[in-house]
Amino acid sequence: MTKPEISKLGYVSLVSTDLEKSLVFFKEVIGLEETEVMDGVHYLRAWGDFQHHTLSIRQGDRAYVSHIGWRTKQKEDVLAFKELLENEGINVQRIEPWTTPGIGEAIRFTVPSGHTFELYYDVKKPAADEKRASVLKNQTYKAWAKGISPRRIDHVNLHTAEDWKETYSFFQDVLGFKLREYLKEDDSNQILAGWMSVTALVHDVALVSRQKDELPTPARLHHLSYWVDDSQDVLRAADICREHGLNFCGPGKHSISQALYLYVADPGSGCTVEVFSGGYLIFEPDWEPVAWNASERAFGNTYWGDSITKKEIIKHTIEA
Amino acid sequence: MTKPEISKLGYVSLVSTDLEKSLVFFKEVIGLEETEVMDGVHYLRAWGDFQHHTLSIRQGDRAYVSHIGWRTKQKEDVLAFKELLENEGINVQRIEPWTTPGIGEAIRFTVPSGHTFELYYDVKKPAADEKRASVLKNQTYKAWAKGISPRRIDHVNLHTAEDWKETYSFFQDVLGFKLREYLKEDDSNQILAGWMSVTALVHDVALVSRQKDELPTPARLHHLSYWVDDSQDVLRAADICREHGLNFCGPGKHSISQALYLYVADPGSGCTVEVFSGGYLIFEPDWEPVAWNASERAFGNTYWGDSITKKEIIKHTIEA
Amino acid sequence: MTKPEISKLGYVSLVSTDLEKSLVFFKEVIGLEETEVMDGVHYLRAWGDFQHHTLSIRQGDRAYVSHIGWRTKQKEDVLAFKELLENEGINVQRIEPWTTPGIGEAIRFTVPSGHTFELYYDVKKPAADEKRASVLKNQTYKAWAKGISPRRIDHVNLHTAEDWKETYSFFQDVLGFKLREYLKEDDSNQILAGWMSVTALVHDVALVSRQKDELPTPARLHHLSYWVDDSQDVLRAADICREHGLNFCGPGKHSISQALYLYVADPGSGCTVEVFSGGYLIFEPDWEPVAWNASERAFGNTYWGDSITKKEIIKHTIEA
Amino acid sequence: MTKPEISKLGYVSLVSTDLEKSLVFFKEVIGLEETEVMDGVHYLRAWGDFQHHTLSIRQGDRAYVSHIGWRTKQKEDVLAFKELLENEGINVQRIEPWTTPGIGEAIRFTVPSGHTFELYYDVKKPAADEKRASVLKNQTYKAWAKGISPRRIDHVNLHTAEDWKETYSFFQDVLGFKLREYLKEDDSNQILAGWMSVTALVHDVALVSRQKDELPTPARLHHLSYWVDDSQDVLRAADICREHGLNFCGPGKHSISQALYLYVADPGSGCTVEVFSGGYLIFEPDWEPVAWNASERAFGNTYWGDSITKKEIIKHTIEA
Repeated sequence: MTKPEISKLGYVSLVSTDLEKSLVFFKEVIGLEETEVMDGVHYLRAWGDFQHHTLSIRQGDRAYVSHIGWRTKQKEDVLAFKELLENEGINVQRIEPWTTPGIGEAIRFTVPSGHTFELYYDVKKPAADEKRASVLKNQTYKAWAKGISPRRIDHVNLHTAEDWKETYSFFQDVLGFKLREYLKEDDSNQILAGWMSVTALVHDVALVSRQKDELPTPARLHHLSYWVDDSQDVLRAADICREHGLNFCGPGKHSISQALYLYVADPGSGCTVEVFSGGYLIFEPDWEPVAWNASERAFGNTYWGDSITKKEIIKHTIEA
Repeated sequence: MTKPEISKLGYVSLVSTDLEKSLVFFKEVIGLEETEVMDGVHYLRAWGDFQHHTLSIRQGDRAYVSHIGWRTKQKEDVLAFKELLENEGINVQRIEPWTTPGIGEAIRFTVPSGHTFELYYDVKKPAADEKRASVLKNQTYKAWAKGISPRRIDHVNLHTAEDWKETYSFFQDVLGFKLREYLKEDDSNQILAGWMSVTALVHDVALVSRQKDELPTPARLHHLSYWVDDSQDVLRAADICREHGLNFCGPGKHSISQALYLYVADPGSGCTVEVFSGGYLIFEPDWEPVAWNASERAFGNTYWGDSITKKEIIKHTIEA
Repeated sequence: MTKPEISKLGYVSLVSTDLEKSLVFFKEVIGLEETEVMDGVHYLRAWGDFQHHTLSIRQGDRAYVSHIGWRTKQKEDVLAFKELLENEGINVQRIEPWTTPGIGEAIRFTVPSGHTFELYYDVKKPAADEKRASVLKNQTYKAWAKGISPRRIDHVNLHTAEDWKETYSFFQDVLGFKLREYLKEDDSNQILAGWMSVTALVHDVALVSRQKDELPTPARLHHLSYWVDDSQDVLRAADICREHGLNFCGPGKHSISQALYLYVADPGSGCTVEVFSGGYLIFEPDWEPVAWNASERAFGNTYWGDSITKKEIIKHTIEA
Repeated sequence: MTKPEISKLGYVSLVSTDLEKSLVFFKEVIGLEETEVMDGVHYLRAWGDFQHHTLSIRQGDRAYVSHIGWRTKQKEDVLAFKELLENEGINVQRIEPWTTPGIGEAIRFTVPSGHTFELYYDVKKPAADEKRASVLKNQTYKAWAKGISPRRIDHVNLHTAEDWKETYSFFQDVLGFKLREYLKEDDSNQILAGWMSVTALVHDVALVSRQKDELPTPARLHHLSYWVDDSQDVLRAADICREHGLNFCGPGKHSISQALYLYVADPGSGCTVEVFSGGYLIFEPDWEPVAWNASERAFGNTYWGDSITKKEIIKHTIEA
């Protein structure tokens, strides 16, 4: 049996304590499009996302990420992953096809970092309704309809208080993520944060180790991220966030990934969204992970701009 | 035996009838960095390229592309490709390791479109000398040192008068390129142009069919392309090209690939370079190639901006 | 008596044959804000305009510009201009204060180019309603609420078939405009087009001479223009216009004024709007007008980009 | 006699303790062009400056601004200002025409803030040498030749420990600057900082009041500023400054003036340069100065981005 593979980040399933506020935030400020509303769950995507949704959001008693969905490379990878995971002693839940609108047969499980992941292959890629559809055949919706108007989902950033060794080897060895850049202790190889991808992006997922007493629960989402095409779009996002009275950090440029950032919190769920642009792509098949020492953390985080080191918003995470 | 795979476009080996002019163009106007000069060949790369070079250029009696280098995914893919190609009846030439500076063991052969390709895996990724090195660990040179200052090589665009069916099936079935978008006859499936990639880019190579009487030789290079991060960099490139008295077309935006373009000719070799930004990435593993009809060609080429349909520079190709 | 002076372009009073379409265009696509609707007239301004409106628009049987309003430097300039104009033999109409919402005492008259100008000093600068008001004390509305979202009105471009000598001397000697750049016959000083300003802008008004048989009526508006802060905003405007199925020319960069342009037609009135950015400011008190010869016209119009020379939209004018 | 008027900021005359370093900074990093070197003084300007120079720089024992030059509106204004100033009890020094290359008859005097101003009208506007000249008739040099490559000088920011009332009334009543925005004590009208202009810019000069014990000498230059056309140019400037190992603050956006900023220190003289873009222009003749309270200072300074409130570089001034 060939090793099953993940092709891409699919979607984040978010629960908000104030759905109304969250919808204003994601639809009007971020500018996502709504594909469908079913059973009180709103399915959203960016104008350049192809899959049915890249974010789902519903009302709940507490704000948290229910699970994070990843698409496999092939249909048979879903069950192959099930077998592989069970061999690793992981408890795997099977989800009936299309239980989640737009998502076919799926499996869900808890990774060693404590987060719930979902794997699936079959998806619906519904066209936009005529009024919102782009005149371009290769683009889902018209761009620039509302708010910041990102092109597509980019990555998730997860925080964990669980064992770093187990976590990183699981992400790499079992799930097949490649380590692209990482932050380590100055005097040891202990990884403090890792940027990992299955794509040419520097990261589809970042994993940050935190002390147990730093986190209310052991597994957290720090942020999910949407991509904009141009640097100036990040500046425009700052204008928009300021005018909406939102709490944000940025614009700034990361050294790690070289990307521009702006972090803004959804006032409904407390979930942080990173508006992201620039950076580099990795096409080299023998990429040597770039190591940053703990003493370089501030520079690694912020090449220039509004530093994320001391901002309150940057310390915030939600349960995941 | 697993099917060998190509990981990425590596470099273009260019011959110029006026090396001095070409070097001014590529080093001062485009703003590439010189890694090395050996035996009269200049090895250049962009500030964000990692490999030893993405362009080599030398003096010759006529301007042409000697060959186009592609890196395989694994070391063993080079010889596996040799076997695969010979099974296809292709004549394969073995190149001694490091004959080309920075490039290890390689094979060369002519693809059905008439172009010479090289495949290799082993490479050198020399660091920049201290004066030009970036302060960033994940970036080779300082950006913005000179001219347009692109980040990295992006793609090549090849024109051919050879049989389209044989060509496209070879690129897809033997070399493993995936068709991402294509232009076809209105009333048949005959492909007139195809955008293909082994990466998440919409194209690492575009292949355009032309009539034999339209091309001086059956296999030609239309352009090679370097990437800039931001739309505005393409506008800045237009300022720079105009001030240098260069012939160019653009800026404009393609519908196909959604990328911004500016085409400018190297006055030394006549080779066209596309300055390229924006566009979309393909992470979906089941991407359905986007079909454009011949009657949509002008719109497919130019979404808006300086139309490439009637410009002389856009008709120009060099031998390859 | 000190010579009265004009301080700035105030507003354009436009009549549309399809008000509804025009309002969608100006409010949703261009992204102007509505200050007030009175007696069927809609009063609009950009988010960074301070005056009550910079565009008024109403339904009519034919599309035309009723008049163009200019603000004087001082209150007493209005009547001083009246006297000056009457001394020049110009018939001057007095408009009761606040007949036009937001505009105090005014005079109207026909300039030798055939266009109707209005001069006034007293204005209202109403604050935005709370929901739309910027959090910035020095900015009227939130930016980026809808569409292209320009900052402010910039200039008007007038075409005339009337005598060029009389026209230019009137604009300069009577109204006090300074000639900044001009296009002239190769072998004489006959001015074919002039860019003139009372401000530091290269032009508040451009005046273009046309043959009588080229124009349906002797005095026409070619376009009115709104300013965006960044080059990329012009590219974004192109995306927006294409997605709205609008006819436009650009983006491109003028040599004359050095500004970026995109011309798009209001489908309601046929009036062209130029989205404008960049360019230079003139602070030198002894500015020597920059002369361009007729043979340089194409280059003067388009430094690079989508050339305005042969586009149909660029030939279009409306009665003024 | 009509009141004499200033038309624009002309140039800053800077003395550096390390001329070589300063020249690398201003010519290679900022990217100014050198018009002339005479008697050890280097005369520099931006590619879009028309006057002979907008910065002069020479070696000295201590770093300071010798004087700041302003151009009057008319030739006769120079001597009219002399008379006006002497009537105010100001000691005025006459400078022989062309003592400073490019500057005709001039007067110099100390303003109540303690700074030395020069007024002149006659200037030389030398064309660029052929190699560096723009292909545009209305632009001095080719843009983008080196470094940040700003278009033109923008403004100066002066700090003073002298009496605010005397200073502001002198700038307004004698020199004719208009107050555009100002920062004041929360509970009184005492001005803490004022942004003033004779042009349509929000400020040609900013004047900031400081306590005597905060400043080594009573009159200081906080920064001089050069303009870039686009927001992204400020981001590009940040890349360039970081790669040159320079100390800087930004990018960020001011609320006051709405402009983007990046402050970077010349390592030769310690003089700070602000790279500046965006913002608004004031054409309204009855502009009401925008008042900000001391308690709004941080927001007034930084709308978003790298906050200037606590950065060491922002506290730095040089003698003036």
